[in-house]
Amino acid sequence: MREPRTDGEPERLHRLEQRPRLVGLPAHAGALRRHNLALVLAEIARGEGASRAQIASVTRLTRGTVSALVDTLLSAGLVVEGGPNRGSVGRPGNALRLNAEGPVGLGIEINVDYVATALLDFTGRARSVRIVAGDNRAAAPQAVLGRSVHMAQQMVAESLTESSKIVGIGVAVPGLVSSEGVLRRAPNLPGWESVAVAETVESMLAMPVEITLVDNEANLAALAEHWYANADVGDDFVRVSGEVGVGAGIVIGGELWRGVNGLSGELGHVTVDPQGPQCSCGGRGCLEQVAGQEALLREAGATMPAGTALGVPDGPISALVARAKRGDEQTLAALRRAGAALGIALSSLVNVLDVPTIVLGGLYADVAPWISDEVSRELHARAIGYHDAGVRLLVSQLGAEAAVRGAAGLVIRRIIDNPSLVADHLAR
Amino acid sequence: MREPRTDGEPERLHRLEQRPRLVGLPAHAGALRRHNLALVLAEIARGEGASRAQIASVTRLTRGTVSALVDTLLSAGLVVEGGPNRGSVGRPGNALRLNAEGPVGLGIEINVDYVATALLDFTGRARSVRIVAGDNRAAAPQAVLGRSVHMAQQMVAESLTESSKIVGIGVAVPGLVSSEGVLRRAPNLPGWESVAVAETVESMLAMPVEITLVDNEANLAALAEHWYANADVGDDFVRVSGEVGVGAGIVIGGELWRGVNGLSGELGHVTVDPQGPQCSCGGRGCLEQVAGQEALLREAGATMPAGTALGVPDGPISALVARAKRGDEQTLAALRRAGAALGIALSSLVNVLDVPTIVLGGLYADVAPWISDEVSRELHARAIGYHDAGVRLLVSQLGAEAAVRGAAGLVIRRIIDNPSLVADHLAR
Repeated sequence: MREPRTDGEPERLHRLEQRPRLVGLPAHAGALRRHNLALVLAEIARGEGASRAQIASVTRLTRGTVSALVDTLLSAGLVVEGGPNRGSVGRPGNALRLNAEGPVGLGIEINVDYVATALLDFTGRARSVRIVAGDNRAAAPQAVLGRSVHMAQQMVAESLTESSKIVGIGVAVPGLVSSEGVLRRAPNLPGWESVAVAETVESMLAMPVEITLVDNEANLAALAEHWYANADVGDDFVRVSGEVGVGAGIVIGGELWRGVNGLSGELGHVTVDPQGPQCSCGGRGCLEQVAGQEALLREAGATMPAGTALGVPDGPISALVARAKRGDEQTLAALRRAGAALGIALSSLVNVLDVPTIVLGGLYADVAPWISDEVSRELHARAIGYHDAGVRLLVSQLGAEAAVRGAAGLVIRRIIDNPSLVADHLAR
Repeated sequence: MREPRTDGEPERLHRLEQRPRLVGLPAHAGALRRHNLALVLAEIARGEGASRAQIASVTRLTRGTVSALVDTLLSAGLVVEGGPNRGSVGRPGNALRLNAEGPVGLGIEINVDYVATALLDFTGRARSVRIVAGDNRAAAPQAVLGRSVHMAQQMVAESLTESSKIVGIGVAVPGLVSSEGVLRRAPNLPGWESVAVAETVESMLAMPVEITLVDNEANLAALAEHWYANADVGDDFVRVSGEVGVGAGIVIGGELWRGVNGLSGELGHVTVDPQGPQCSCGGRGCLEQVAGQEALLREAGATMPAGTALGVPDGPISALVARAKRGDEQTLAALRRAGAALGIALSSLVNVLDVPTIVLGGLYADVAPWISDEVSRELHARAIGYHDAGVRLLVSQLGAEAAVRGAAGLVIRRIIDNPSLVADHLAR
C-alpha cells in the first residue's frame, strides 16, 4: 500500500458551532474538515437518499456546514442530487446519492494463468470486467505487468466518459505483499520476488491517480464477497480461493484479518498429509498438492490446453465440470479426494481461528456439487467447536471476477472512508 | 463470564472543569466518574510512583478531581501512598502505587488430572499457588468443583489477612466456555457438558465477590505469559499448552483472540495425520493423538501412576524427563515424533493466522530440549511466510502455574480497567 499524495490546497475551516460533536482531539482545522467530509459521505453512502437536512440531523453538524461539505462532494462528482428523498423533511428532489456516472476505481489482477481488469463506479457497480488467459509463469514480471496495464488502458478508452476519471488502482496478486505494495513472493510464479507492483503499475499507466493499493488476491476476493455478493455471508467468514494456488481471505467483524505481518490465509500450505508430495514451498503434503487446480486436473486425467485459464468459457475447469457431469469416475474420484483434503484443511483453520462460515470460491465454486459433501463431512467430524451448530458452507456466485472486483472496490471504499484524498483534486 | 453486580450507591458528580478532556458522549454523570476513576488507576498501575499532581498533568483532569478519585482508590485499598515519587513535582513521599497488601483475585483451575488454586494481589504477585493431582475423569463435575472450592477456602484461611478481601474469581477449565461462564464441553472430561461453572463456584464458595470469570485454560495461560513472564513475548504470539489436551492461547495486539464464538485455539484437534488414530472428538489423527500427554507417555513406554499429574514433582512428565536425560531411545523417539507433529500443526496455524512468535508451555516446556529442533525444523519447512525471518520459538518459564495465575490475573485486570466495579463496595 502506498501513501496517498498530500493535498497541497489550503484547508478551509468549518467550525463546529451550536451543536458540538465530540470528535477526539483534532490536531488542526484540516483534520476536522476531513473528518466531517467523511461523516457526510458515509451518510450518503448508506444509499437511502438523505437530504442535507437529514444529514445535518444525523451527524449533528450545522446545516451550513453540511451544505458546504455536500457542495464539495457534488463538485468532485462523488455524489449526485435528485429524485425523491426519504421521509418528508426537505424539498422534494434533493435526495443525495453516490454518483454511478462519476469517478471510478480501476482493478487489476495478476494471477498464475490469467490477467483481469475491472472498472467499478462509486456505487460498486462493475462498469466493465475482462479476464484474459495466459500462463504467466513463463513471462517476466515486467512483461506481465505491462500486459495488464495495456488491457487496463484499452478498457479505459472503451468504457470511460470524460466525467469518469480514475481515482485509484487496486492490484490483486497471488502472493505475499508488503505494506509498501511490494510483492515479496508468489509461490506459483517463480522469479516474482520483491516486485514493486504499485510503483511499476503507476509508472506504466502514466495516468495521475490518488492511491494505488496492492493486496493478495484471496484477501480481495473475500472483500468482494462481503461487499458485492448476493448471499448473506455475514461479518465473520473465510472465503477459499481455489486457483493454481489455494488461498483464504479471512474476514472478522467485517474487516480483513491480514495477519501480524500481512501473511495470513495461506490455506494452500496447510499440511493435509505430512508424508505427501513435495510442494514448491518447501513443505510436504500441502493442500495445494492435492486440491490445487493443477493437482486436480492431473488426478482427473483432464487435459489442459496451453493458454487456457480459469474463468475462460472453454478453460480446463469447464472441461473438468463437463467430465464430472457425464459421470467420469476418475474425475469424480479426484474431486472427492480434493474435497476431503479441503475439508481437513478447513477443519484445522476452524479449530484454530473459530469462524462459523466458509465460502467456496474460485474453481471450488465451479465444482461445488461434487466436493461439498466431502468438505461438509470432514468439517462435521473434525471441527470440534461446531459439532452441534455446524459450519455454514456457502458457494460464491462471483465467479472468476471476485478478486479483480475486490481490488477496484478496495480503492473505492478507501476513498469513501476518506474523501479528502480526492475531493479537492477532483472538484471541477 | 458473568455480569458484575450493579452498584446501588448513588454516583457523585465530579465535573470536568477548566481543562476538558473529551471522553465521548457519556450517558450520565456516573459514566463520567467511572471513566475518570479508571483513567487515574491506569496511570497509577503503570508503576512509576506518580503523584496526584503528575496524574492531573497526564490525564488533564483537575487536581481537585484527581484528589477525590485517589481518595476513593485509597479507601478501597486498591492503591497505597508513600515512598519517593518520580521526578521533582509534588511533595516527597506522596507516590501512589498499586497495593500489594490489599484486595486479591482468586484463581481456580480445573484440569483433566489436577486442580489448582492461586491468590494474586493487585501488583500481579502470587500470594499463594497450589496444585493438587487427581484424575478428574472419574469424578462428577460437582465433586471436582467442590474439591477446588475447598482448596480455595483453605488457601484463603491460611494466606489472607483482614485487609486482603477477595474481589473476584477467575476459573480456568479445559474446554469450550460460553459467555455466561458455562463450560459447554470438555473433550477430555467425559460428562462435563453444559456445566454452570461460574454459578456453581460462586454458590459453593459462599463468599461475596464482585465478578466471576470463566475461560479456557490455554487462553488464560497465554494471558499469564503476556502479563507475568520474564521473557519478552511481545503483543502477538501463540502459547501452546501441552496437557492431557493440547490447546493454544492466541494473543493479537496484546488481547486474546477467543474466536467468533469463543471456540478458537483448539490446536489439539488440528489434523496432523488424516489416517491416524481415532480421537475422542470424532476426528482422526488429531495432534493430541500423537503429542498429547497420554499419547506421549504411552509411546515412550513411561508408566503413569494413578493420581499423579503435570507440575507435581514426581509426576509422569518428570519421569519422562528423567528417561530422556539418561538417553532412553524409546523416549527420545517418542519426543521427536511428538515434536514433529507439533511443528506440523503449528505450521498450519502460522500459515492461516500469521503470528511471528510461539511459546511452548505446559509439558512442552518441560521437554523443550528434546522437541525444539523438530518443532523448528517443521516450522522452517512449512510456514511459508516465515522462510526468511523464521518463527520465534520461546519456552515458557511459568510451569504448571500459568493458567491459574492467568485466571486470577484476569479478574485483577478487569478491575484495574474498571475499578468502579469494586471501589465503592470496598471503601472502608
